Amino acid sequence: MDNNLYCVIMCGGVGSRFWPYSRTNMPKQFIDFLGTGRSLLQMTVDRLQGIVPPQNVIILTSVAYKELVAEQLPQLQPEQILLEPARRNTAPCNAWAAWHIHKLNPNAKIMVASSDHLIVRADEFRQRALDAFAFLDSNHALLTMGIKPNRPETGYGYIQTGDCMRGAFSRVKTFTEKPDAELARVFLTSGEFYWNSGIFFWSAASIISAMRRFAPEIADVMDNGSDLMCTPAEQDFINANYPSCPNISIDYAVMEKADNVCVQCVDIGWSDLGTWGSLYELSPKDAHRNVGRNCRIMALESEGNIVATTGEKLVVLSNLRDFIVADTPDALLIMPLAEEQRLRNVVNEIRSNYSEKYL
Amino acid sequence: MDNNLYCVIMCGGVGSRFWPYSRTNMPKQFIDFLGTGRSLLQMTVDRLQGIVPPQNVIILTSVAYKELVAEQLPQLQPEQILLEPARRNTAPCNAWAAWHIHKLNPNAKIMVASSDHLIVRADEFRQRALDAFAFLDSNHALLTMGIKPNRPETGYGYIQTGDCMRGAFSRVKTFTEKPDAELARVFLTSGEFYWNSGIFFWSAASIISAMRRFAPEIADVMDNGSDLMCTPAEQDFINANYPSCPNISIDYAVMEKADNVCVQCVDIGWSDLGTWGSLYELSPKDAHRNVGRNCRIMALESEGNIVATTGEKLVVLSNLRDFIVADTPDALLIMPLAEEQRLRNVVNEIRSNYSEKYL
Repeated sequence: MDNNLYCVIMCGGVGSRFWPYSRTNMPKQFIDFLGTGRSLLQMTVDRLQGIVPPQNVIILTSVAYKELVAEQLPQLQPEQILLEPARRNTAPCNAWAAWHIHKLNPNAKIMVASSDHLIVRADEFRQRALDAFAFLDSNHALLTMGIKPNRPETGYGYIQTGDCMRGAFSRVKTFTEKPDAELARVFLTSGEFYWNSGIFFWSAASIISAMRRFAPEIADVMDNGSDLMCTPAEQDFINANYPSCPNISIDYAVMEKADNVCVQCVDIGWSDLGTWGSLYELSPKDAHRNVGRNCRIMALESEGNIVATTGEKLVVLSNLRDFIVADTPDALLIMPLAEEQRLRNVVNEIRSNYSEKYL
Repeated sequence: MDNNLYCVIMCGGVGSRFWPYSRTNMPKQFIDFLGTGRSLLQMTVDRLQGIVPPQNVIILTSVAYKELVAEQLPQLQPEQILLEPARRNTAPCNAWAAWHIHKLNPNAKIMVASSDHLIVRADEFRQRALDAFAFLDSNHALLTMGIKPNRPETGYGYIQTGDCMRGAFSRVKTFTEKPDAELARVFLTSGEFYWNSGIFFWSAASIISAMRRFAPEIADVMDNGSDLMCTPAEQDFINANYPSCPNISIDYAVMEKADNVCVQCVDIGWSDLGTWGSLYELSPKDAHRNVGRNCRIMALESEGNIVATTGEKLVVLSNLRDFIVADTPDALLIMPLAEEQRLRNVVNEIRSNYSEKYL
């Protein structure tokens, strides 16, 4: 396997859209979300077999999750886990990873992946990831995987493809954040639009170069610390300087501005598992179209519910339709699936009027 | 206080109508059902202060609940707890208590109470109970407390009063089991009908005499064991012979047949707390008419629910109206209050198709 290939896994999210099943001290990526016996993070790492050497996997996570990551991924060496002292969205996080890896290996090529997404077609993903790395050999590009859409999803960002470069690889014409339903239908039928997966490929040199140009506030911090990267002083430097980076996404800071951005159009069975609704759609259903996670459901005139509990709980539902029932030892949510966008407000209200201990 | 006055508390119920909040190993009477810090059993015993001497309180319970009773009522001596080896409804249970107490004190007068009912007006109850005992001095009667109805309840039995004997005491004209809604309305407006509370007063001699006449199968068993009552051999005798008694209620076996049955009409704020609906009605409600037990409720467009949890749980409800939400560590019920009569079927189905461990 090519020792120049690296994977950065972003693992710092707090997963409030799945409250109370996902908690501040046990966010979504650490949970066996699909009942497979492996957490989403573990599934993400498992998928990298045959793509990058195991020692070239780097986890970026919050210092709060250091033990969780080490526990779930015992095969990692401590130096493969980078601990963010503060949450600053994806641009600072990818900057640190790029400068760090560039110091390890100036010829490094990096795949960036989220720790809490689902990819159903792992073999197809592996092939396309290797294609993507190969594409970088002849193109000084910032590459993003675009997912062939199968429905007019309004919760995702879309990428419009421009000139075809080679096979599945095209220039990017536009980025469009979450469209309304009508626009999403137009996107779907046009055939030109792909979901923005947040899976990126770039060389360490390319992304560093792009950040110096488009995100100099962040690049300056990392350039100041470049001598300390991969030394015992790195963490102290990051702890002191990372929090001063602007809180900004890599899409907004770099991808929407750079002129060497390309998209690879793939069909890998991807979902960001961003909502209870998406988990419901992806999960096997019983005869009453109910989905259970960790529980046994007795359904009386109850259909279309997603029920997630901790422990082997018996859940009796009567005359409940299309609800989320999410249960943990100290919190219980009962809410229509159609209202799950209110969950963010619920979490905010709990923080303000109840107690942080429930988050 | 009159040492001839006794109280028998029937404490063997399994409380399946409150599943899963009430469980086989922790039935309703042992739970702090109203959030007062005292279980219904403890509240029942507390209410007897000033009526019968503490050492004259006798608890009839299942052998399975021996430790629970002793734990909740540490003031009791072991000989105040009688352990039924099998569940045989209220006639055998009251027979044993009567023969046992008669052996202790041939002049005993007995009040019979349920361990899982609620009486809001405890002072009024105490006065009327003392009146009832006094009534027995001049009347060889089997007396039942009749509760002045305040609504056309279809879940209770009704007693029609006959000739007035003295003050609140009358002969009983008829017993009517759960009437339909129309009949219940007629009963309510007639002024002649009272709820059958299951609180009885009789002398040990009177009930023994009545049982010999109307329930000879049970009386024979107890007569055979009368020499052993209150001796170390009593429990062995009961273990061997009690299970052969017919499974029958005291109302059906004796009260509906005897000709010396009287009713004392009272207004003591009584409820049998027989259903989630009755608990809902009796409980204080928040601004959204929700009732919470052991939990904090965040209600979004959610009204009229009763939510009971174990532990201090945060429960977020959205668009849920008039439901029961009953949660324990291994079982969760979500069911409209209007359907709670289905709970018995649910419990039966759990027994058949799931596991006894959930009951």
